[in-house]
Amino acid sequence: MNMYDIIYKKREGGILTKDEIDYFVKGYTNNNIPDYQAAALLMAIFLKKMNNEETFNLTASMKNSGDIIDLSSINGIKVDKHSTGGVGDKTTLIVAPLAAAAGIPIAKMSGRGLGFTGGTIDKLESIPGFKTSVETEEFIKLVNNSNLSVIGQTAHIAPADKKIYALRDVTATVDNLSLITSSIMSKKLASGSDAIVLDVKCGNGAFMNNLHDAEKLGELMVDIGFADGKKIIAIITDMNQPLGRAIGNSNEVIEAIETLKGNGPDDITQLSLTLASYMIYIGGKASSPDEGYKMAVSALKSGNALKKLIKLIKGQGGNIDVVNDYTLFPQPAWSVEIKVTREMMMDENGGLSEKKYISNIDTKNIGLASQHLGAGRATKEDIIDLSAGIYLHRKLGDSVSLGDVLATISGTDYSRKESGIKEVSKVFSFGNIKPEKQTLIKKVIMK
Amino acid sequence: MNMYDIIYKKREGGILTKDEIDYFVKGYTNNNIPDYQAAALLMAIFLKKMNNEETFNLTASMKNSGDIIDLSSINGIKVDKHSTGGVGDKTTLIVAPLAAAAGIPIAKMSGRGLGFTGGTIDKLESIPGFKTSVETEEFIKLVNNSNLSVIGQTAHIAPADKKIYALRDVTATVDNLSLITSSIMSKKLASGSDAIVLDVKCGNGAFMNNLHDAEKLGELMVDIGFADGKKIIAIITDMNQPLGRAIGNSNEVIEAIETLKGNGPDDITQLSLTLASYMIYIGGKASSPDEGYKMAVSALKSGNALKKLIKLIKGQGGNIDVVNDYTLFPQPAWSVEIKVTREMMMDENGGLSEKKYISNIDTKNIGLASQHLGAGRATKEDIIDLSAGIYLHRKLGDSVSLGDVLATISGTDYSRKESGIKEVSKVFSFGNIKPEKQTLIKKVIMK
Repeated sequence: MNMYDIIYKKREGGILTKDEIDYFVKGYTNNNIPDYQAAALLMAIFLKKMNNEETFNLTASMKNSGDIIDLSSINGIKVDKHSTGGVGDKTTLIVAPLAAAAGIPIAKMSGRGLGFTGGTIDKLESIPGFKTSVETEEFIKLVNNSNLSVIGQTAHIAPADKKIYALRDVTATVDNLSLITSSIMSKKLASGSDAIVLDVKCGNGAFMNNLHDAEKLGELMVDIGFADGKKIIAIITDMNQPLGRAIGNSNEVIEAIETLKGNGPDDITQLSLTLASYMIYIGGKASSPDEGYKMAVSALKSGNALKKLIKLIKGQGGNIDVVNDYTLFPQPAWSVEIKVTREMMMDENGGLSEKKYISNIDTKNIGLASQHLGAGRATKEDIIDLSAGIYLHRKLGDSVSLGDVLATISGTDYSRKESGIKEVSKVFSFGNIKPEKQTLIKKVIMK
Repeated sequence: MNMYDIIYKKREGGILTKDEIDYFVKGYTNNNIPDYQAAALLMAIFLKKMNNEETFNLTASMKNSGDIIDLSSINGIKVDKHSTGGVGDKTTLIVAPLAAAAGIPIAKMSGRGLGFTGGTIDKLESIPGFKTSVETEEFIKLVNNSNLSVIGQTAHIAPADKKIYALRDVTATVDNLSLITSSIMSKKLASGSDAIVLDVKCGNGAFMNNLHDAEKLGELMVDIGFADGKKIIAIITDMNQPLGRAIGNSNEVIEAIETLKGNGPDDITQLSLTLASYMIYIGGKASSPDEGYKMAVSALKSGNALKKLIKLIKGQGGNIDVVNDYTLFPQPAWSVEIKVTREMMMDENGGLSEKKYISNIDTKNIGLASQHLGAGRATKEDIIDLSAGIYLHRKLGDSVSLGDVLATISGTDYSRKESGIKEVSKVFSFGNIKPEKQTLIKKVIMK
């Protein structure tokens, strides 16, 4: 077997065998196959596609390239949750405490943000003292104590994915169904949970722009997880605007805490309760998603979920006072309000409207604007400004008049202010008719 | 402009602009673009293809990546000749003297063999003392003296092609029309001749297996050359069996000398006269290819072409005695005859035929067998055994009986003998009906 023949076969549209896929994944991870051959194969896979069996084999190979976490010393059905990546998505910080409060053990490994999407680990690190790098033994102990720990993925989880993703990122081979699936699922399957709830984002702030593509991704991931013996549900949810109002790190944690206090924005609250309901159901603590939903609502209203978050912070060395004193979070050096301008209110005939509606938010670009303010990374080496971010005062369908505040942007680096104002001002579109409300939960896929 | 966007554009089937192609070719040649991004782009080009304008721009970029040879100090229309690569193809050694004898100045830069195809420069180096590395000034002087010089391509001719070809070779992106065309034509256009005759090989021993693909390649190369201001003709010729009887280096030079003495195999003689006739025509020394043909025949019969070859050898430091004493060439240490076996003569019903016909010769594999005997290279670093090779006693359509000699194989390395016998025995197929003769000259393409 050699790499040239494997590239040639895929180039001609052939179906790669399990052995051929293993040969590539092992050889590339061990640096025996050079980047340029891997890049040629990835482009051939991108353009000629992989079938479900190939995707399953690729996922398995990547999963087996590193450690498989053994969570068997934690009692009960361990449930994981994963989002395919969106803007303002702080649901893990809410969903995990909700499900844990309902009796579900959550031993979650999370990632960092890259590009226009944020990552849970960065957000958690805005809590002073919070440790995200924890040994497996300690991790298991934390979950056994309080049903909940969230830590960063170790380098030993699916190292093949790290190498392959880094290469895809610079060779324009990221947004392929099989490659996305194998990247996400190899890590999830190696992380040791028994059940997984996937939040598949769909819209102008997600990898998948339309429902059809999101469905295909959700179905493929459910198939792959099921074939590996996991309980798995995919929920397709709207990402045509940021979730909630806060985009950044500290500000997203604050919004998550507010949500657990019962003061959260409606979309974040609803999505979190829904995801938690399926986690409670799939984890066997409720006989139906509806019953799970009621248990999630009760965990929220009783304050038990907030208590779980506090226990999580305490358990991982964080300062629990942040829950009641938000000034303990990293503070921005500057803040600027973006207001509705005359230009925004201009009609086609040159007149000025009294009132308009926000008809579109370019979600991907608001994610990128947040990154440029310092809240995200362009490359893995970038250091994040945890205080930087965007707060949306108006969202899709809201009415606006001249001078209304659309958003507040903030950060530490003054040199990023002017471009931040420009970028955020551009993401809003306006219309004279109130747009139809987007459905937040678009579809549930399970086997 | 950045490489990621260029890869993305081609991946989506976009048409690359001249600037984008320049950016890639320059950046890759200067080592500013890494191999893995170039590999991803090449695979995207392979699968999404390039149109004629892109191919023209790619060729121009590659041509301009190095020196453009100035042959203006040579009087007359300088005519170049190029073959897309075949097995047993020693025509340059015959055609160039024929055309030179008819008054055409030939300032030819040739390549070395790789894979199953041989190269003129390797063949010439089997003449003791013959120098293929010559400075441009000396090269021009040689052509002004005798109308003929054949030297190796310098590293300064289309360096982009060298880098890109080496990458294509290991990423399964060689056999694409635009990439083949740009590779060949960038070197031809940089070599400074005014007119070019292309021998486009077609058959089981060529990159292009069928007439349709060979026509497309020929038409594209003619278009590209024409657009660059060259006179250019492509001739599609048969490569369903080796040309002549000798495959190797020394043995091919001997066969070329014999052909110039009037004793050559029919196919080599006919093809050489035809190619020469178009070179004489395109070079303005004949008013039609037919008149050119007559002049080529006269150059052969008069011995003037042989004299040109002797002058070429002498001018470049070679021992001209080789022309009459073939023992001066590197001699093989061993030779083995491959004979017709009982198995080859077996009928479907188990009986033994008295007589059969050679119905097929796997030309690519006979080229590879020759390479494995030592006559060719698997990688650019391999050192060639100039004495090694294959001599065919029987060719397509010849009748054979039990015990007849099919081929003689020879070499210096004894360890290659057994596998050589096995490989060469396998390339022949036999049938009971005499197969139809292949047309040697399949099509002429000119503008």
